[in-house]
Amino acid sequence: MKPLGPIPPDFESVDGELAISGRTASQLVEDAGSTPLFVYSRQRLSDRMAQLREALPERLAINYAIKANPFLPVLQHMACLVDGFDIASSGELRMAQAAGLDANRISFAGPGKRDDELEAAIAAGVTLNCESEGEAERALGIAAAAGTQARMAIRVNPSFELRGSGMKMGGGAKPFGVDQDRVPALARRIIEAGADWRGLHIYTGSQALSADAIIETQGNVLDLADALAREIGGPLPKLNMGGGFGIPYFHGDEALDIAAVGAALEERFANLPASLADTYLCIELGRYLVGEAGVYLTRIVDRKVSHGTVYLVTDGGLHHQLAASGNFGTVVRRNYPSAIATRFGAEPEEEANVVGRLCTPLDRLADAAHLPWAEAGDLVAVFCAGAYGATASPAQFLGHGPAAEIVV
Amino acid sequence: MKPLGPIPPDFESVDGELAISGRTASQLVEDAGSTPLFVYSRQRLSDRMAQLREALPERLAINYAIKANPFLPVLQHMACLVDGFDIASSGELRMAQAAGLDANRISFAGPGKRDDELEAAIAAGVTLNCESEGEAERALGIAAAAGTQARMAIRVNPSFELRGSGMKMGGGAKPFGVDQDRVPALARRIIEAGADWRGLHIYTGSQALSADAIIETQGNVLDLADALAREIGGPLPKLNMGGGFGIPYFHGDEALDIAAVGAALEERFANLPASLADTYLCIELGRYLVGEAGVYLTRIVDRKVSHGTVYLVTDGGLHHQLAASGNFGTVVRRNYPSAIATRFGAEPEEEANVVGRLCTPLDRLADAAHLPWAEAGDLVAVFCAGAYGATASPAQFLGHGPAAEIVV
Repeated sequence: MKPLGPIPPDFESVDGELAISGRTASQLVEDAGSTPLFVYSRQRLSDRMAQLREALPERLAINYAIKANPFLPVLQHMACLVDGFDIASSGELRMAQAAGLDANRISFAGPGKRDDELEAAIAAGVTLNCESEGEAERALGIAAAAGTQARMAIRVNPSFELRGSGMKMGGGAKPFGVDQDRVPALARRIIEAGADWRGLHIYTGSQALSADAIIETQGNVLDLADALAREIGGPLPKLNMGGGFGIPYFHGDEALDIAAVGAALEERFANLPASLADTYLCIELGRYLVGEAGVYLTRIVDRKVSHGTVYLVTDGGLHHQLAASGNFGTVVRRNYPSAIATRFGAEPEEEANVVGRLCTPLDRLADAAHLPWAEAGDLVAVFCAGAYGATASPAQFLGHGPAAEIVV
Repeated sequence: MKPLGPIPPDFESVDGELAISGRTASQLVEDAGSTPLFVYSRQRLSDRMAQLREALPERLAINYAIKANPFLPVLQHMACLVDGFDIASSGELRMAQAAGLDANRISFAGPGKRDDELEAAIAAGVTLNCESEGEAERALGIAAAAGTQARMAIRVNPSFELRGSGMKMGGGAKPFGVDQDRVPALARRIIEAGADWRGLHIYTGSQALSADAIIETQGNVLDLADALAREIGGPLPKLNMGGGFGIPYFHGDEALDIAAVGAALEERFANLPASLADTYLCIELGRYLVGEAGVYLTRIVDRKVSHGTVYLVTDGGLHHQLAASGNFGTVVRRNYPSAIATRFGAEPEEEANVVGRLCTPLDRLADAAHLPWAEAGDLVAVFCAGAYGATASPAQFLGHGPAAEIVV
């Protein structure tokens, strides 16, 4: 038996079923018309943002990194809640614009921006987080050719990283950002070239659950920003302090203590150096904002027993839930939180494997899980499906196509 | 420095560039209009089939498992070369039909077939490889309700597996197929219910490079089919012997000796038991037929150096090449065969990392590779991109969308 991850708090049971925004899993599927289905809760999105606003300094702006979930109704909902969007491609720029977000609230990071993407972003007035000297020169050239001024910041490759993060993005050689010792020269070049200088973006890692690690890293980020600003020779207009706030996926994971993160930031903000005194300070969060607001529902098509082992074969799978299947940047596969949605709260009775419909043993949603008895027709819920689900999975694999998505 | 995988034989250099069907990488990109680009070679598809027909017994039919590459022009080309198609979803059924393939040359395996998929397949006349007793009953019920006869075979979960295969699909408890000891009872049930009994499908694994392992497994498959046929009480109409033929991806891999596989099969076929004497015998291959016929071309957008390490940042990445990035069922990341396509055959000069454009350190196409000096504008080729590339990768990740595909 292998433990399941922790189900995010406050999911209710109605008539013995998992309910989201008061509607049972069966009703949600009926309303959407099919399984598999991603359900995103507006209330959970709003609640999460309210918790963050409560915990973090008022001065700190919160951006949404839309790569985590670019479903249009999610973007539209988030647009009213956050202070800005972070994008990673011109495709995401179009999505952000479709959601009605003002381009001057958008910044664009990503190591392989093509000329056509730089052109579109500059024309729209988006802030470019430049990833290299070469990219900065291309952007300056494109802006000059268009007779316009580009909004330019520098993404810094810091010499430190976020301890305990799931995905390390700083420290040593990296394809992301400009090594910190080369940042002042590039900043001066950008300023001298007449661009609209927007400051720095310092991203150090993602999916950290330790408040201490985040506090330490945010302190390092502020120190580095101050040092760089002094070397550049002027106060920073803006500092994107990165993100890194994690959510619990696996057994034993505990929720990040955002109150502690907020208190430490308040203290730092009360004593900012002159270089940062008037700086627009923001963080960018993706997974933390939307991850726990989403549930993936898939229907059991077959209950089968092979050599005494129970398999609940669903009509979903890794083509929608690559990370949950343990096949995306994972060394040891562990179970995401999941449940039999149509028997929510029922006592576990047996050990079963929840598998997807693909012809590969990799397609497993829950491994040796302790679950209530379930059969064909029952719905399975995979939680923490709001981030890096639909778009971070190979939806066309085996010709199955994408899952439906709804916001409730 | 980490070695690159072996480039498949017979790729030529024209004007210092990789050429496919006589057109240079630059010309191919110009013709297609954009990068990233998958290029599939008709000639290589045809040559591979010709080699197989030469090596394998004339009696053995060869099916194409279209999950490996369902691009319509590839399917249309393969339809003229192979004896049948294997599909894994109703989506693939539509693709097979769009390619003009006669439905009675199609068989359908997959552990999570929904009722709507069974209905479509039965209506079309496709052979169902039933994965469980429950699925067989559903199929019988659907055929009865439609007043038609379903073509039904049984996918067997054998007690043995393909040694050394990349993906084990048999042996012990599995979500695939019916445990071999329960097959005779189910076969009799299918025959008695009046279905068009089509025999057995025995799939044991994939991506094996050892001829000995494949020969041993094919022997086991024939023995098991004979034993099951005798228990069922009649000769088998058809036996799908599975696939499992691998291609070399990594340094040190050697091509499968298909002549040895063919010779062993000839010997077995000369001495078939009565139960198999008149059986339609086939294998199903996906990766082996199309994998080496495809090349992924992506353009270098930035050449950057971080702490002395060279990064060639491309406009492609794991959203098109998940397996090549080492993020799909891989424990230890190794390099696929790749090259600087616009400096094909040039001497390697430096150690460089070829990375994609996604904001994740997972997005790496070649790690610490020994490559000719290259810069922005150069094209990178990733070989062995004909199978499980475009459709087995999260194309929508970060809003980038799918790569272009062409057949030449």
